[in-house]
Amino acid sequence: MRAEIITIGDELLIGQVVDTNSAWMAQRLNENGIELYQITSVHDDRAHITAALDEAFGRADIVLTTGGLGPTKDDITKQVLCEYFGTHLVEDTRVREHIHELYKERPDVLNRLTATQWLVPECAEILENRVGSAPLMVFYKGDKILVSMPGVPYEMKIAMDEQILPYIETKVESRKSKAIIHRTLQVTGIPESSLAIILEDYENSKPDYLHLAYLPKDGIIRLRLSSYGEASEAEMSDWFGRLRDLVKEYLIAETDEPLEVIAGRLLQERGATIATAESCTGGKLAALLNRHAGSSAFYWGSVVSYDNSVKQHLLSVPEEMIKTHGVVSEEVVRAMAESVRKLIGTDYAIATSGIAGPTGGTPEKPVGTVWIAWATPEGTTAECFHLGKLREQITERACMKALIGLIRLLRE
Amino acid sequence: MRAEIITIGDELLIGQVVDTNSAWMAQRLNENGIELYQITSVHDDRAHITAALDEAFGRADIVLTTGGLGPTKDDITKQVLCEYFGTHLVEDTRVREHIHELYKERPDVLNRLTATQWLVPECAEILENRVGSAPLMVFYKGDKILVSMPGVPYEMKIAMDEQILPYIETKVESRKSKAIIHRTLQVTGIPESSLAIILEDYENSKPDYLHLAYLPKDGIIRLRLSSYGEASEAEMSDWFGRLRDLVKEYLIAETDEPLEVIAGRLLQERGATIATAESCTGGKLAALLNRHAGSSAFYWGSVVSYDNSVKQHLLSVPEEMIKTHGVVSEEVVRAMAESVRKLIGTDYAIATSGIAGPTGGTPEKPVGTVWIAWATPEGTTAECFHLGKLREQITERACMKALIGLIRLLRE
Repeated sequence: MRAEIITIGDELLIGQVVDTNSAWMAQRLNENGIELYQITSVHDDRAHITAALDEAFGRADIVLTTGGLGPTKDDITKQVLCEYFGTHLVEDTRVREHIHELYKERPDVLNRLTATQWLVPECAEILENRVGSAPLMVFYKGDKILVSMPGVPYEMKIAMDEQILPYIETKVESRKSKAIIHRTLQVTGIPESSLAIILEDYENSKPDYLHLAYLPKDGIIRLRLSSYGEASEAEMSDWFGRLRDLVKEYLIAETDEPLEVIAGRLLQERGATIATAESCTGGKLAALLNRHAGSSAFYWGSVVSYDNSVKQHLLSVPEEMIKTHGVVSEEVVRAMAESVRKLIGTDYAIATSGIAGPTGGTPEKPVGTVWIAWATPEGTTAECFHLGKLREQITERACMKALIGLIRLLRE
Repeated sequence: MRAEIITIGDELLIGQVVDTNSAWMAQRLNENGIELYQITSVHDDRAHITAALDEAFGRADIVLTTGGLGPTKDDITKQVLCEYFGTHLVEDTRVREHIHELYKERPDVLNRLTATQWLVPECAEILENRVGSAPLMVFYKGDKILVSMPGVPYEMKIAMDEQILPYIETKVESRKSKAIIHRTLQVTGIPESSLAIILEDYENSKPDYLHLAYLPKDGIIRLRLSSYGEASEAEMSDWFGRLRDLVKEYLIAETDEPLEVIAGRLLQERGATIATAESCTGGKLAALLNRHAGSSAFYWGSVVSYDNSVKQHLLSVPEEMIKTHGVVSEEVVRAMAESVRKLIGTDYAIATSGIAGPTGGTPEKPVGTVWIAWATPEGTTAECFHLGKLREQITERACMKALIGLIRLLRE
């Protein structure tokens, strides 16, 4: 059972919007045993959309389209689908009532353009878009299915989880692929090529239907083992276990979860709390630690000390220490971590200070130099890293290094 | 002159990685007068890559591929391109020397797998990948061009800016499209459909070759006027000016720049500084304000007071006030803003306190309720917002509301 995604919108092709929808949809499809074969982004253009539909139907059983369903003139997907399936628009009473209910406290939205949203293609089956006005439309082409949904990420996500995936499940159950299994390890501290040499015998001896992929990012390599229906859970577990044993020296996680989720769980298991004092990471590490629901159980707060005056006055880093060692130094970052741990009253604290660039580098401390300290109930450790040359990369990698250090301390 | 992008990698099609490269490349291509027609994501699979190449060459003059160039077994792009162009791999001395130079301080990377990186297709022209080991390869198919580059975002970006775009410029100058012009306004505080009704006469009277697009996100609608070669700069300015006049009541920006860039520039023009005190936004607003180079000129620091104890002890919010009014209240958020402004010693300060969910909502203060306060040299203002139901959406929108309020105050 193969699916394809077609994302529709000029904004994608001029780079005004990053397509985050497709990756989210891809995950959900895989979890539901449906292989995603291709993602195609096309313009809000009749001929272009039509050609993409033809091509996708030539390869896949399910075609999912996002975008182009707004009430404004630039959105043409509904009209193009009408023509493609040789149908016309009719008023849908349920959709009309739903939209009236949705906007009952915002009568300004119930204007004549919004009214076009309850016109739907006659031959389409309509699923409820609980949080928006664009109808979710299902079309059939023989036994192949097309679902058209809005491109607004939160509308798409709710639609997929509550309506579209359950709908597809009932229609295609008998034609589904056997179980798609992905298992991922995260390793750090080894170049990709050296890792591949360690795994050479493993790769040569594993069955061909188990696929091993290397995904390096921000100093972490994710090693993914995949099976598209051929391997049993037991066989997968066996090969995954061998993989883990081969790389255990470099292992940071045995799942694909974000590191902040792993760190948060370890903190909660210990009933421990954490704070951060951030210079170069500027609040990014804080935002990572409290990104997920439930983080208030372990994350208490942060001081972002971008300006040196904040390091001195709020974090009590002595002016003399900054003058002697520089603001990017082991001494300062240790003082920051210990100070914020006391100030906020947590068990753990992490501090960062570095040169994110593009200016501020020196021969001794070039752009990319980052000191990180971890203050714990048992004492404080610190480490210096060189994290590349680009501002965004440096701050991202610094957050990853901070989390890796924390996870290792919590596992000790 | 049309281009297409093919992104290669199973990780994209199982949703393990979000494709941020394509949007960045799309922007650069448009800025260089090259229209991007389609983006296609395909598996690390010989037949799939080959089919995508054939299709892309059927539509476009330039095909840009990313990904599949690592030294590990799962990466097959170089080998597939060899077969596609009927050539074979040969050793490239320049690439070999470059890789030795690149890793001269990391001999562990110079292993036999890395050595495969200096084998390149004989018929390809090789451009220098300054920061990585994968060669940038240029192939010709008649007068059409294919460029293959790595998928690692920072390698891709440096390669595009330093090598690929200048190369394409010299080869296709005479065949380029006339100027592609995009101009964007950002408006807020009006539903998309109501905006479209205001602009109905405008849309009906403008020339067909000017395209108007509506891009709603996080409470802001970006209105983009585009011309693909037909309109002169003067004509574009004229129509853009009329658009601005029609929406001036809702206008927040006359460019597509991120709001934090606009706010930062306004602060710098006034020689003013800013701090934040964040509860529900958890450091996200801080990270936005210091995201771009040069932000240390106006951004000084933040207190993230996720736990109430931090609000009380670090921000001196009276316990009694929290008990009486609740932590998500006008009183508390005003106190937070005024306190952090004094504590860090800045001219401006923004504070946020809200219920990001999924738990913690009440009938009076449901999930999505967010109070924001702006403390300025002239006094403090505060406003309550209802920002939806999903955690990530609530915190993103709260940051946008905070920046919109700041920009309006700075323009007063």
